[in-house]
Amino acid sequence: MEQTEQIEGGITAVEGFTAAGTFAGIKKIEKADLALIFSETVCNVAGVFTKNRFPAPPLLLDRKHLRKKKGRAIIANSGNANAFTGERGYRDAEAMAEAAARALSVPIESVYVASTGVIGEFLPIEKITGAVPRLAAQLSPNGGRAAAEAIMTTDTFPKEIAFVGEVGWREVKVGGIAKGSGMIHPNMATMLSFLTTDASITPQLLQEALRQAVDRSFNCISVDGDTSTNDMVLCFASGRRGKEIRSKGAAYRQFVSLLEKACQTLAKMIVRDGEGATKLVEVKVIGARSDAAARRIAESIARSNLVKTAFFGQDANWGRIVAAIGNAGVPVRPEQVDLFFGSEALVRKGIYQGKAAESKVAALLKQREIELTVYLHSGKGQATFWICDLSFDYVKINAAYRS
Amino acid sequence: MEQTEQIEGGITAVEGFTAAGTFAGIKKIEKADLALIFSETVCNVAGVFTKNRFPAPPLLLDRKHLRKKKGRAIIANSGNANAFTGERGYRDAEAMAEAAARALSVPIESVYVASTGVIGEFLPIEKITGAVPRLAAQLSPNGGRAAAEAIMTTDTFPKEIAFVGEVGWREVKVGGIAKGSGMIHPNMATMLSFLTTDASITPQLLQEALRQAVDRSFNCISVDGDTSTNDMVLCFASGRRGKEIRSKGAAYRQFVSLLEKACQTLAKMIVRDGEGATKLVEVKVIGARSDAAARRIAESIARSNLVKTAFFGQDANWGRIVAAIGNAGVPVRPEQVDLFFGSEALVRKGIYQGKAAESKVAALLKQREIELTVYLHSGKGQATFWICDLSFDYVKINAAYRS
Repeated sequence: MEQTEQIEGGITAVEGFTAAGTFAGIKKIEKADLALIFSETVCNVAGVFTKNRFPAPPLLLDRKHLRKKKGRAIIANSGNANAFTGERGYRDAEAMAEAAARALSVPIESVYVASTGVIGEFLPIEKITGAVPRLAAQLSPNGGRAAAEAIMTTDTFPKEIAFVGEVGWREVKVGGIAKGSGMIHPNMATMLSFLTTDASITPQLLQEALRQAVDRSFNCISVDGDTSTNDMVLCFASGRRGKEIRSKGAAYRQFVSLLEKACQTLAKMIVRDGEGATKLVEVKVIGARSDAAARRIAESIARSNLVKTAFFGQDANWGRIVAAIGNAGVPVRPEQVDLFFGSEALVRKGIYQGKAAESKVAALLKQREIELTVYLHSGKGQATFWICDLSFDYVKINAAYRS
Repeated sequence: MEQTEQIEGGITAVEGFTAAGTFAGIKKIEKADLALIFSETVCNVAGVFTKNRFPAPPLLLDRKHLRKKKGRAIIANSGNANAFTGERGYRDAEAMAEAAARALSVPIESVYVASTGVIGEFLPIEKITGAVPRLAAQLSPNGGRAAAEAIMTTDTFPKEIAFVGEVGWREVKVGGIAKGSGMIHPNMATMLSFLTTDASITPQLLQEALRQAVDRSFNCISVDGDTSTNDMVLCFASGRRGKEIRSKGAAYRQFVSLLEKACQTLAKMIVRDGEGATKLVEVKVIGARSDAAARRIAESIARSNLVKTAFFGQDANWGRIVAAIGNAGVPVRPEQVDLFFGSEALVRKGIYQGKAAESKVAALLKQREIELTVYLHSGKGQATFWICDLSFDYVKINAAYRS
């Protein structure tokens, strides 16, 4: 096999994992709101958590369980974030883990908990613990999609992917599900993703690989540090396939690349499903002095409401983009800036290319997926971000979210 | 006189200043787009300019003229920002200054230039220089409002204020006009303000006073460094009143306080007129470890789209506010956080105060002006920001701005 290939399914596309989703009664309308993911065998586990100073209780519990770097199950609910709920919230997170542990006959320390939804309200914990036995009974090797559906909040479609790729002369699979993060620059909205793999890798390297994959995917649709109280990415590695990866050789690099592909695909699905989004824009910055400089510039474009509303208006408002570049806090000179929409240059060496170029770009802007490339001709630094536009519906959804 | 008092008028409320505004043909519709402000005598001048790495040509020219710290006139146009226009743009800015200098019989170095509007298009410079003589002929001690009108872009009302206050045992006046900055967290939209005063103060202290006043006003509706290519604040001091302020004694402090009051009042007007704004929210952070920490927290709340859309929806979504506090990158513990809307506590020591408190807050949220106070009980640091909500109309205005 030459390279990474996308295959059907999500987390349960990887052998040894089962999943299920059900309606436990947390959401006001009858839509699945409780997910369970289970591994037949003990997995190595890696996790990346929010940088928000107020991590929600489930994250505190998960960090504790992650000390052993092992795991068997994830229980996740939507409809209520169990955030800003103090000690009672922590006890509720423990109760969720315990209910799952009992139903699955595994130690509580091997169960990870996630919550997403409204902040500051207590979980209806009896409803959740009451639903766990029937949820466990529904676990199935075809249950990945049900789990993906049960973690949705304002998402309009479930997000699941699976890839197969060569890792150390063996075919290795990575499956994943995710839920959306409000919009491309999620100030606070929650992003969850759970990944499964049959790769065999030490917990330390699994953690490093996940960190790198997240930095080049989920962290390129959000803005560094500017994350929800509940954001988390967990990766379970069952170790069924291949010799254990113990060093950063070829097999490790292949695994990172596979994991990165999985995370980027999920991240782009999140953007495509951004609240009210009508466009997916890939923002590439090429030729910056360093990767870090490129990233700051991409981020500055990504967080500009004026840029995002211009994309919604299908307006080639390059002035706003160039102004965002100038706001990145990175030394750049206007005469070094080229700006391409697709393969069409609208700005070269800081100079606007005129109405003819603009009308070609205007046609491109009618598409749902747009590539914006910034060339800086100052070095080898690169970064890619994925953003959506800012539409009427974003305001509508977020002005009314709790009602 | 005990304290600062607001008086009628704007920049021409200060004796010795005249102003005018006219339609030069820069805007597509016939609305005033060219302003002139003139001082009978040579003034000390201070200026604060955008931190954007791509300052527009007028700012480059002004920085050059500001080396002498003296000035007689400001010529400002709306409808076209003269930004990203390279050498031709700089020559156009010079031509504006020169036309004004000739009409007023003053040296070109004493004329300051400002532009606001669409980015990346060349100025219709003949229209501007052609209009200057009749503009100069219209200069009047009652012309402040006409000038305020001529610098408007998407503003819905002209912004002018004047205050009188005691500075060193004398009555001193400060007048000002401003134009809006898109929205409360202006990624790129342009903010201009011109201030006049009859205070007598050294150019160095005038510059320091203006920097401080701007930091506590215009920079508390924007986000540090995240400013347009054209943002600027200029202050002309004629020196007609009182003994020259040469040190940071009582008179200096009185002057700073007067200038700060003027700038804050204009800044709040800008927020109230934010694109699509339906609410003005004063965000106070009290009891942080330092003023800088308080400022970062206020800023984090101010830049959250989710917080702003919740205000538009009149939703007491305190979870988003507390999450924004947690995202400020400043050490805070949830149990130290009290959150007040007006005098109503919705969160105390990190705990939600229940539905009864929330319904009282819900009533407050129907008002047009809202006070949000965050108490952190960790020190003496304070900061105040002013923000508006994020509404449908914000998206509408900015998606269609150039068409």
